[in-house]
This record gives sequence, structure tokens and C-alpha cells, in this order.
Amino acid sequence: MSAYHPLTSEEAITLAQRLPGVFSENAVLNCREIGDGNLNLVFHVTTENSAESIIIKQAVPYAKVVGESWPLSLERARIERQSLEIQHRLCPDFVPKVFAYSDELAYTIMEDLSQYTIMRKGLIDGITYPRFAEHIGQFLAKTLFYTSDLGMNQQEKKELAGRYVNPDLCKITEDLIFEDPYRSSANNSYSDSIEDEAEALRNDIPLHFEVALLREKFLTHSQALLHGDLHTGSIFVTPESTKMIDPEFAYFGPMGFDIGAVIGNLLLNYASQPGWNQSNEDLTLREERLLEMVKDVWNHFESSFRSLWNKDLVDEMSRTPGYQDHYLTEVLRDATGFAGCKMIRRIVGLSHVADIDGIENDMARETAQRKALAVGKNLVRHHRNIGTVDDLLKLVHLATTEIGVSI
Amino acid sequence: MSAYHPLTSEEAITLAQRLPGVFSENAVLNCREIGDGNLNLVFHVTTENSAESIIIKQAVPYAKVVGESWPLSLERARIERQSLEIQHRLCPDFVPKVFAYSDELAYTIMEDLSQYTIMRKGLIDGITYPRFAEHIGQFLAKTLFYTSDLGMNQQEKKELAGRYVNPDLCKITEDLIFEDPYRSSANNSYSDSIEDEAEALRNDIPLHFEVALLREKFLTHSQALLHGDLHTGSIFVTPESTKMIDPEFAYFGPMGFDIGAVIGNLLLNYASQPGWNQSNEDLTLREERLLEMVKDVWNHFESSFRSLWNKDLVDEMSRTPGYQDHYLTEVLRDATGFAGCKMIRRIVGLSHVADIDGIENDMARETAQRKALAVGKNLVRHHRNIGTVDDLLKLVHLATTEIGVSI
Repeated sequence: MSAYHPLTSEEAITLAQRLPGVFSENAVLNCREIGDGNLNLVFHVTTENSAESIIIKQAVPYAKVVGESWPLSLERARIERQSLEIQHRLCPDFVPKVFAYSDELAYTIMEDLSQYTIMRKGLIDGITYPRFAEHIGQFLAKTLFYTSDLGMNQQEKKELAGRYVNPDLCKITEDLIFEDPYRSSANNSYSDSIEDEAEALRNDIPLHFEVALLREKFLTHSQALLHGDLHTGSIFVTPESTKMIDPEFAYFGPMGFDIGAVIGNLLLNYASQPGWNQSNEDLTLREERLLEMVKDVWNHFESSFRSLWNKDLVDEMSRTPGYQDHYLTEVLRDATGFAGCKMIRRIVGLSHVADIDGIENDMARETAQRKALAVGKNLVRHHRNIGTVDDLLKLVHLATTEIGVSI
Repeated sequence: MSAYHPLTSEEAITLAQRLPGVFSENAVLNCREIGDGNLNLVFHVTTENSAESIIIKQAVPYAKVVGESWPLSLERARIERQSLEIQHRLCPDFVPKVFAYSDELAYTIMEDLSQYTIMRKGLIDGITYPRFAEHIGQFLAKTLFYTSDLGMNQQEKKELAGRYVNPDLCKITEDLIFEDPYRSSANNSYSDSIEDEAEALRNDIPLHFEVALLREKFLTHSQALLHGDLHTGSIFVTPESTKMIDPEFAYFGPMGFDIGAVIGNLLLNYASQPGWNQSNEDLTLREERLLEMVKDVWNHFESSFRSLWNKDLVDEMSRTPGYQDHYLTEVLRDATGFAGCKMIRRIVGLSHVADIDGIENDMARETAQRKALAVGKNLVRHHRNIGTVDDLLKLVHLATTEIGVSI
């Protein structure tokens, strides 16, 4: 018999009180369930008389977004918690600390980041994050390098991969990103005004071919331990600090999937820019800043990854001259293709982004949707031919020029 | 406390006697340990008064070939037994039946194939196997297709892959095939007369680059459940029947690795032909027959695989026109590269083959060694550029012409 049950706020407070060394002895604790998500309860435990606080995240055994009919293994709570621990060990500055957990009750108690902003919201609000590209570049380089055959013992990597078999969460990605947008599916969701775009996606055989290749990589390329869902809603920021959260989709997959998630979400925000008027800043400048950010993310990742490779490589054959360049070009190509897939699915698939859906004006929102699709399709279509991040940005420019959207 | 200990012949007989429905009631059983191998005890249990017999194969916790200092997990006995069961379910004609097993004692009791010949020996003796290409082509197509994301539920495949984490045995392959031949290593073994070849292998950077790519595929491309060691010593044959045994190296890896093992071993025998004079048959005919067999193995695999794909595909995106052709070309390229790696390692690495080492005349043996290396290197060097199995055979011809070996 499992002791699992959804926690109440009272139970969350009791768990927090039992935590050694976090709250002062006489602290009066309050608790609020703040989960907006689809898969979890999130309890925010605070004190009345001090700044101390924690988060208790508990998995529920189904996906809320599609009702209780989509069952999900609670095993993902263990996978998320162990991923946080590995990522925190590799990048203590960029990942919240885990204080305690229960695999049976599927909860993790961790550092509270409520003084941070969710990056998606920050970007929508036009806030600049000058340290972000450097931080995420380092996070990606360290977490991907040190969990790959390049940076960790290759026998231990196999054992570790065996503990990150994550079929339920992988299936969400396989369906929602690599299949539904390209066919008629009850999971898809978009307004009638872009039915022409959805139909074009369903009939675009050359595009399906490239998606099939990327899907195969997601299914079989066991390259490194991924975060697995690294969109801008899984990133907490201040102008000085960056924290990556929610790695419940973690599994061993292609490095480019994580990098592509970051790039794709920056480009979704880029595509949405003409729809937002809350800032007096020049539109062109904001768009250029976002494209510059895409470039910087890749460049910081690449230079960090190369220096880890030159310092800590464990694979002798990978020292072969030319192999590092080849490897990184392949990762960039994958990242480009995955970025495109992630943009497309956020327009016609089940799960959308506030950057686009939050645009109030119907015409402006539709323009942003078409722009995001044009960019996404161009990235998917040509991902295997690019050689540098400038090529990636050229694909973005060409896509927006082609459909006549001024930038 | 583990009950594991190496079985005695007396214990093997007792296990055989307990087996329901295999031996007649009054059978008098004899037992002989016949393991010539490096990793296992093999007990052949026969009767004095009938044709009934079985094999009991037990794993030992070390690799004999390098002394007791190379420890090996007994877990491989479970992996081998479960692989046999899966392969037997998919191809009952081509895989021995498992009667009983103990994971604790790391043994499997299975069908005796002593009326068969080990294919390597048969090929050395110049025997023809007219059904072999068809049988192995079907075996490869069925075992690889139905354990891949093309032919099995993609969530169940992930769970299954988690039960085939096989780090000890994979490490043997990683070291002996994808690293040692390209550097100075105590594991390497070859005569002084080909030191020039060994040195050339150590210094050939473009070759190392291709080997690094193939090694990365072996390490990360979790495509299907492989046999993992499908050389002609793991294949038992009669002119009418073919059985694949010993899948203890099984793990989820690139399909081309199994296909390349078969092709590489046929080509090792091809390279050895001028050294064998036990037959009056025309040498050119025998060589051509072996090259024809390589072609037939691929063609039977390909046509079986395509018909399984057209019949039982579970992956919707893989129905995209053109994707099947692309997929099979990639498998052929991988198979070509892996075949080359396997040829090279059998000449300069730890473990050799009787096809070559059994040649008595020193000069003829050296010629065969150089021929095998020339072919192997050419396959590795150009594997990414071929499009058909005829291209593969062209690489074989070019390699043998280049070094002036007449065929």
C-alpha cells in the first residue's frame, strides 16, 4: 500500500517545521498553494516575522492540463529531485538547493525563489537580463558536458542513464512537439484565423521529413542528461542572477534539445515584439537585443563547452583533431532544428506561450503567430545545413523577410 | 550472501535431471565442460542411450582472456538469457530455446546445437551456406525492427532499454574495437612483421576521426536491442539451418553494429582466402561467393526490414515519404563503418580470428592481414559517403587493388 496522497497546506507546514536549520525556532509559518502548473502542487511556506521561506513541490499522478485522464508516473518526482541535485552539484549558482524529499509522497523541499521573476514574464515586460546568456551558457555547458561520454566515466554514465528512464514525460514531448502539430489531433489548439497555417503544416512533406529526423534524435540519441523542458517559464531571473528549475522531463537525450528550448523561446519572444507596446523603447532595438541574446547564448555555451572539453575530456578518441569542431557543429544543427519544433508547437499545439497569446490585439497576435511559424519552419527545414550561429540568425531574418514582416 | 559458485559437472547433471520433459526417465547422463570461451563455463550434457542433450552455460565473474583481473558482472547472464528469449520469440527458427535458468547462479539451460558447425570453421573449410544470407537477413530485420522505436511501443522500449544497461560488456567493445587499435596498448597483439601497419593505424588522424564518430554512435545511439557480438563464431550453421547464440553483449545500440559484425567477419574470411588451400575450388570463385554473400546479407536484411516497416510501423512521423530510404541508407553507412572497425581490431587488437591466424604460411598470413587492414580502413574512411551495398563492395575492391593483392 502506498502512503501517497496530495498534501494539504497544514501538512506542508508540518514538513517545513521539521526541517532542521531553515526556520528560526519561534517562526510562525504560513502556507499557500501557488501551483499554476499542469503536473504538480506547489506550496509556498513563509514566515510572518522573517524573510525565511521554502518551496514544497509535489507531483500529482495525472496531467491537469488534459484532466485526470492522462496518468503520469510519480517516479518523475524522484527524477526531478535527482536532476536538481546533479545540476546543483555542477552549477550551485544556477540551480535551487534541495533541502529534503520523499520519494513515496513524491515531494521535494527546496530553496524558495519568489524574489525572482519568471523569465518569460520579464521578457514580456521588456526587462533586460545582461548576465543571462553567460549564465545559461555555463549551465548548459556544465550540465551537458559532465553527464556525457565526454565528461564522465562511460560505464557510470550508462548506469546513470538507467535511472533516468522517463517514459511518461518523454511521451508528452514526443506527442506534443514531434507529432501533433503535423497532423489533425484533438490536442492541437489554435484560432480559426490561422487554419491555413495549420493545414500547411499538415501537408508539408519536406518539413515532416526533417521533423522525423529530429524526433528520431529525441527518441534515440542518449548523449547527455537533459533538463528536458528548458523554456523561459522554467527559468527564474533577476538582472544579476539566473536559476533553472523544474527538470521533471529530465532524461538522456540530445544536447541540442535543451539549447534549442532556450533559443526557441527567445525567438518566440522576438516574434511577439511588435504586439507589445508597454515600453517606449525602440522596437528595432528590442528585437536586435533578442537576436543578440540568441547569439550570445550559443557563443557562451560553445566557449564554456570547449574549455571543459580541453580541460576534463575523458574520451581518448575524442581528442582527434577536428572532432571537437564537428561535434559542436552537430549540436548547433540539432539545437536549431529543435528550436524550430518548439516554436511551431507553441503556436498550433496544445500548450502555448504568454509572449504570443498575451497580445491583446487580434491582428497583432495573428501577425506574431505567423512570424513565429515562419521562423520555426525555416529553422527546422534548414537545420542540417548551417555551420555557425550567424547562419541560424540568417534563417530567422530570411523567414521574417519572406512573409513581409518588417523587423 | 550470494549462492554463486562455478558449477561442477555433477551439479550440471543434477540440473539437467530436474528439467521436466527433456530427458527420458531412465536416461544415463554424461557431462563435459566444453567452454573454449573467455567469459563462461559451458556444460554439454548428453545421454548414453539416446540423442537427447542440452547445454548449460554459466557466466564466470571475470574475463579469462585477460586473467581474473578483468572483473565482469554476472548480470550479463540475465541479459544474455533475456535476449535469447526475446530473439527466440521474434525468430524461433534462428535462436536456441531456453529451458530454464538461474539469475543467482548465472546459468541458462538451452537447446544443444552440437550437430551444427560454428560458421567461422565452416567458412574456413570452404563450405557453402546457401540459406545463410536469407536467414541472417531475417534475423537482423526482425530483432532490430521490433525492438526499435519503429516497431515497438516507444514507452515500453525505454523501459526495456533500462533492463539492458550492460556497462561491463560494452566497455570490452569500447576498448578493444574503438580505442586500442589506434594507440599503443598492452591489449594489442600482432607480429613484428606488421608493426608498420600498427604504426600507420596509430598515426592516421583522418581514420581516427571516422572511428571517433563510430565510437560515439556505439556509445549513444540507442536504436534497437542488439545481439552485440554477432561474429561468425556466434553463429551455428548447417547448409539448411542457422542459429545465432551468445548475445551476452546485448544492449540498445546502433543497428549497423550487428549488421557490420556479420559483414566484417565475412570480409575477414574473404581476405584470408589466398592463405587456404584445402579445396580444389577456384580461388576467384570462392572470393566472389563471399562478396556475393555480403551483398545478399544486406539485401535480405533490407527487403525484410522494408516489409516489416510497411506492415508493422508504430511511428506515425516515420511514414513520411523518403524517410524509410534515408533511414536504411544511414544503417548501411553505419554497418560499413562498423564492419571496418571490426576487421581492423581482429588484426592488431587483442582478439583475433582463426580465418587469418590459422593460415600456416607466414607470408600468406601476413598478406591476408594486410589485405584485411586495407579493406577495413577503406570501409571506415568512406562509410559516410556510400549509398548502396554495391558502393560497399567497390570500397572492398579498391582497397585490394590499391595494395596490389590480386582477387
